[in-house]
Amino acid sequence: MGTFIAVDIGGTQMRAASYAPDRLEPIKQKKIATLASEPGGFDRLIQVIEEVWPKDQPVEAIGLGSPGPLDPHTGYLLAPPNNPEWHNFPLAPNVEKHFGVKAYLDNDANLAGLAEYRFGAGKGHHDVLYITVSTGIGGGVIIADRLLQGYHGLAAELGHSIIDPNGPPCSCGHAGHLESYSSGPAIVKYVLGELEAGTKSSLKRGEALNPRDISEAAKSGDALAIKAYQRAGEYLGIGIASFLHAFDPSIIIFGGGVSQVGDLLFEPFQASLRKRVFHPRYLEGLSFTTATLGDDAGLLGALALARMMSSQNG
Amino acid sequence: MGTFIAVDIGGTQMRAASYAPDRLEPIKQKKIATLASEPGGFDRLIQVIEEVWPKDQPVEAIGLGSPGPLDPHTGYLLAPPNNPEWHNFPLAPNVEKHFGVKAYLDNDANLAGLAEYRFGAGKGHHDVLYITVSTGIGGGVIIADRLLQGYHGLAAELGHSIIDPNGPPCSCGHAGHLESYSSGPAIVKYVLGELEAGTKSSLKRGEALNPRDISEAAKSGDALAIKAYQRAGEYLGIGIASFLHAFDPSIIIFGGGVSQVGDLLFEPFQASLRKRVFHPRYLEGLSFTTATLGDDAGLLGALALARMMSSQNG
Repeated sequence: MGTFIAVDIGGTQMRAASYAPDRLEPIKQKKIATLASEPGGFDRLIQVIEEVWPKDQPVEAIGLGSPGPLDPHTGYLLAPPNNPEWHNFPLAPNVEKHFGVKAYLDNDANLAGLAEYRFGAGKGHHDVLYITVSTGIGGGVIIADRLLQGYHGLAAELGHSIIDPNGPPCSCGHAGHLESYSSGPAIVKYVLGELEAGTKSSLKRGEALNPRDISEAAKSGDALAIKAYQRAGEYLGIGIASFLHAFDPSIIIFGGGVSQVGDLLFEPFQASLRKRVFHPRYLEGLSFTTATLGDDAGLLGALALARMMSSQNG
Repeated sequence: MGTFIAVDIGGTQMRAASYAPDRLEPIKQKKIATLASEPGGFDRLIQVIEEVWPKDQPVEAIGLGSPGPLDPHTGYLLAPPNNPEWHNFPLAPNVEKHFGVKAYLDNDANLAGLAEYRFGAGKGHHDVLYITVSTGIGGGVIIADRLLQGYHGLAAELGHSIIDPNGPPCSCGHAGHLESYSSGPAIVKYVLGELEAGTKSSLKRGEALNPRDISEAAKSGDALAIKAYQRAGEYLGIGIASFLHAFDPSIIIFGGGVSQVGDLLFEPFQASLRKRVFHPRYLEGLSFTTATLGDDAGLLGALALARMMSSQNG
């Protein structure tokens, strides 16, 4: 196994790092502004990869992580947010052409799940459900030691599971998705709606409310703020009950900012899950934990992808 | 690859067959009454296997299919309906001990999905979603050419996906599962409820209504009967939209009696699915079809399981 390069293309910056065989400490690591809405994105990507390119060792493959939708089988970006230049863009093929080295692409949630499975909270497990609860809700699923990708590479879009066909609109426009109940913006929207309706609270409408304000108010005893997280946790339990019935994992790993609030979300989540799961055996030996790789999950997931695909393809 | 024996343990009969390498025509095939509530079930199973045991060739492995819940990893039945003798029963281990040959067990829906993937409507596909719509709703999922089983062997219980957290009770007692909207008994229950409420129809309450009566009334233009299948199809579309987002298959195969009614169910299903799927790419190249193996799906699935596990385990 040779040297690998991993790239995490985020909304604000692109990070690249090179890794020696069997090591998780990068040889070199660099970042560059993404500037998604400005031209020249591909040149910036090439530049940051060149900056971490090892002097003496050959590079075996490059792993690329990006927000979706994208096609991991062809390496094309389909329609990344705020980036008209990269609509239907052959990202991995162009990187391959430029460097003469195999390049592999997958989406950020899948790669964070893969990273936690290989190097983080999921080590030793074979069937992993990773859920990131943040501005959106994303999933990454490992089944019998393999990353679930699907025919179009669009599997594990778990934030878009339909929880209630008559529920509130999701960021994608469709009704009643898990993301429209339990994401950060959904929690804020619920509080704003209740304030609008006259519910008493220490929180004020008109402010630029964020999930952290609401969690702090909840910790100070604000009833509306507590109820907002209770509701989010309850729906998260409903969604995850169905994911247990579908995937039957041995561990659930929570990533993303919203899942860092702790019991405020997870107590109602646990109560809801236990009420909703249809057979107690799903919960036997099932671990619940939070992600351990933090901001490095994207890079390490791209590294894991490159190593995994290289070993599968020869 | 040697001779394999497959057994399909159904509610009314157990069927066993022996198969030469690479053949789907059985060498011998026998059946025996299941008599689940009567003692001696294991002896009947042994007897029907002995009746198909080949005289001259060694048997490589035995595949067993049964209604769940069961654990395919240990070969234990957990709590089969109407069979107190087989609660927490080591079925595959006991068969192994008796015959001195490896035995493998999985549930009937998983095995029907596996059979359709290997030998039936799903041949040539790598990512298959099989759904049986009948008295219950069951799933069988193939991901990248492997049967999805899960940590406890309880994956793909898709009839127990929560469609509406406040929905009607499922046969399992929990609220709003797909099975409580789109199974045969759910269709009947909806019609009985509407008749009770005074809705006019050619169907009469008090009769022992079954889904076939309702589909015949629908084909004769009965508005309530049509609406009952429309509603079942609409909820089936909601459930399957979420399954596309989760598994992203290249083919959906429908088995079970209820799915034989055709357009009555599948027109509203298709309209609902197209409305609910959150990205049109899931539908690109996606095939929809009905199962082709009929009553043989269980036996052929048990055969496929035995062959698959034997080749995986050396």
